Amino acid sequence: MANDTLEGNRRPPIPRQASRGASLLDAIEGTLADFLAAQIAALDATDPALGGLARTTRDLVLAGGKRLRPTFAYWGWRAVSDDPVEPVLPALAALELMHTFALVHDDVMDESATRRGRPTAHRVFARRHGARFGESAAILVGDLCLVWADQLLARTPMPTATLFAVRARYDRMRVDAIAGQYLDLLGDREPGQWSVDRALLVARLKTASYTVQRPLQFGLALAGPASPAVDETFERYGALVGEAFQLRDDLLGVFGDPAVTGKPAGDDLRTGKPTALRLLAQGAADAEAIAATGAPELVEAMIRERVTAAIAVLAAAPIAEESRAALIELAVRATHRPA
Amino acid sequence: MANDTLEGNRRPPIPRQASRGASLLDAIEGTLADFLAAQIAALDATDPALGGLARTTRDLVLAGGKRLRPTFAYWGWRAVSDDPVEPVLPALAALELMHTFALVHDDVMDESATRRGRPTAHRVFARRHGARFGESAAILVGDLCLVWADQLLARTPMPTATLFAVRARYDRMRVDAIAGQYLDLLGDREPGQWSVDRALLVARLKTASYTVQRPLQFGLALAGPASPAVDETFERYGALVGEAFQLRDDLLGVFGDPAVTGKPAGDDLRTGKPTALRLLAQGAADAEAIAATGAPELVEAMIRERVTAAIAVLAAAPIAEESRAALIELAVRATHRPA
Repeated sequence: MANDTLEGNRRPPIPRQASRGASLLDAIEGTLADFLAAQIAALDATDPALGGLARTTRDLVLAGGKRLRPTFAYWGWRAVSDDPVEPVLPALAALELMHTFALVHDDVMDESATRRGRPTAHRVFARRHGARFGESAAILVGDLCLVWADQLLARTPMPTATLFAVRARYDRMRVDAIAGQYLDLLGDREPGQWSVDRALLVARLKTASYTVQRPLQFGLALAGPASPAVDETFERYGALVGEAFQLRDDLLGVFGDPAVTGKPAGDDLRTGKPTALRLLAQGAADAEAIAATGAPELVEAMIRERVTAAIAVLAAAPIAEESRAALIELAVRATHRPA
Repeated sequence: MANDTLEGNRRPPIPRQASRGASLLDAIEGTLADFLAAQIAALDATDPALGGLARTTRDLVLAGGKRLRPTFAYWGWRAVSDDPVEPVLPALAALELMHTFALVHDDVMDESATRRGRPTAHRVFARRHGARFGESAAILVGDLCLVWADQLLARTPMPTATLFAVRARYDRMRVDAIAGQYLDLLGDREPGQWSVDRALLVARLKTASYTVQRPLQFGLALAGPASPAVDETFERYGALVGEAFQLRDDLLGVFGDPAVTGKPAGDDLRTGKPTALRLLAQGAADAEAIAATGAPELVEAMIRERVTAAIAVLAAAPIAEESRAALIELAVRATHRPA
């Protein structure tokens, strides 16, 4: 039940953004690789088995993914800052380590076999001592990523007031991810008690808040005392874009081409997941029946409405043009109908 | 395989310490209860199911336990500070929330049915939607406690340099707990590859560092720039006391009275856990055979040696007398042979 809109390979990668010559994403990868190498060395020195745990964790972190949260955080920061990016790279990269925590634990809960085209953490460890050991080790890998994310965040120097504001966004992001995942678990068990509103609440927690709003506001806070107008812009833009992301994912979960999505066709149908699309289709059980209800057109209209409104929110905001253009592009690319 | 020396009911409770009239532990409980009530209200407002998740988490946190980590942190702080305790209570209480994270995840890994005389988190949630849902929800409860601990820690106001030093101890504490638990899992699967040294390494990570050294140093750092001499005193005292705690637990795991330990007699024998005691007993498989090897006397001597050395370390340290006396009492009480 993990949210795959942004993590899976259901859509083409978002192009790398230029940042002082090198690409932003390359700089994030480099920051992560350096940090992880230092942690591996420290744990190896304690016990080689701990070095092995750390190396497996590194491989999971560096296995790819769109790095959407660092990207949104970067544009939230760049919206109001002209400074060189290097000092804030650890804080941006921390969001990706934190995201690995969420993915690894989600994969245990969902019993997923693959992630980013590779075996999931619990599957990797299961090879050594069986399924139970695999799940236990994966829980610890996720825990380690969450703690490491904090350690990496601490490497961006900032004044106390800034740190307090940044961590407040970060904490909200983490609680919303956990709360959204809990509701997602419940929805799979209690689909009869679900409503379109509750499906959209899950989208607001797991996708809007966790992926867009809080990363943008985290980046904005990194730049110093935040303008309330910009903070509110990101709150509204993120809510709209996050819901649109999730609604597109609902459609891909039923109608997506497995060759593009990397998931079996109709995956969400098999799991019985109470998505907004399925709730609007009122119990229709296969792709053809869902199409016949007209629900897909309704969901397409909901996506268009949200993306249009998100772009309108950005239009008048007091942010750098480069950031405005990037956020418009991110909203459109991540929610468009695949060709 | 969770470390029960300090968490379970294998030994009598440590007496509450006086602190400005009210007991320290009552003040910790009050801080936790207030914080948790606020989180429950916030999540309830988002969705009643999330309020339910938060209430179950609160019940687990407030179900008791010796609050050893806040206690050691308090005496580490009181060793050099005469200030009122109120401002540092959130930081002390945060260690207990963080500990609930570790216990809840350990109980999932160990498939434990009870903790502190009540059903474990995964058992509570399993009643609703089965074992798989129970484990998934318990993973999320642990995650939530880890994030809440950070939020509570942020409520103790402190200068940037202090916060940096406090969080460095806190991060080390968290990584060592995770590393120790991973080695503990491996030891249960690969007992043939274990040695007394490796068993003591697990004790140094899971018990010495996580329970004694880092909490003491965390408390010391809370008081401001730490004296290197006091920091080193706590490093050495904690290493000795932590190993002694674990060695006493090894003995209780084989010879403990179930009425006192709250665990079935010979629990560690059944699980095949490669404790220092069992490794010294060279393959002896029951309590009588282990006793015949003389290993129990050897372990008793190792405990005495460590406690004596820990008390000697404290003797010359530049710390408040009240703190010195409390740390001696904690070392003796938590490692003594039950009557």
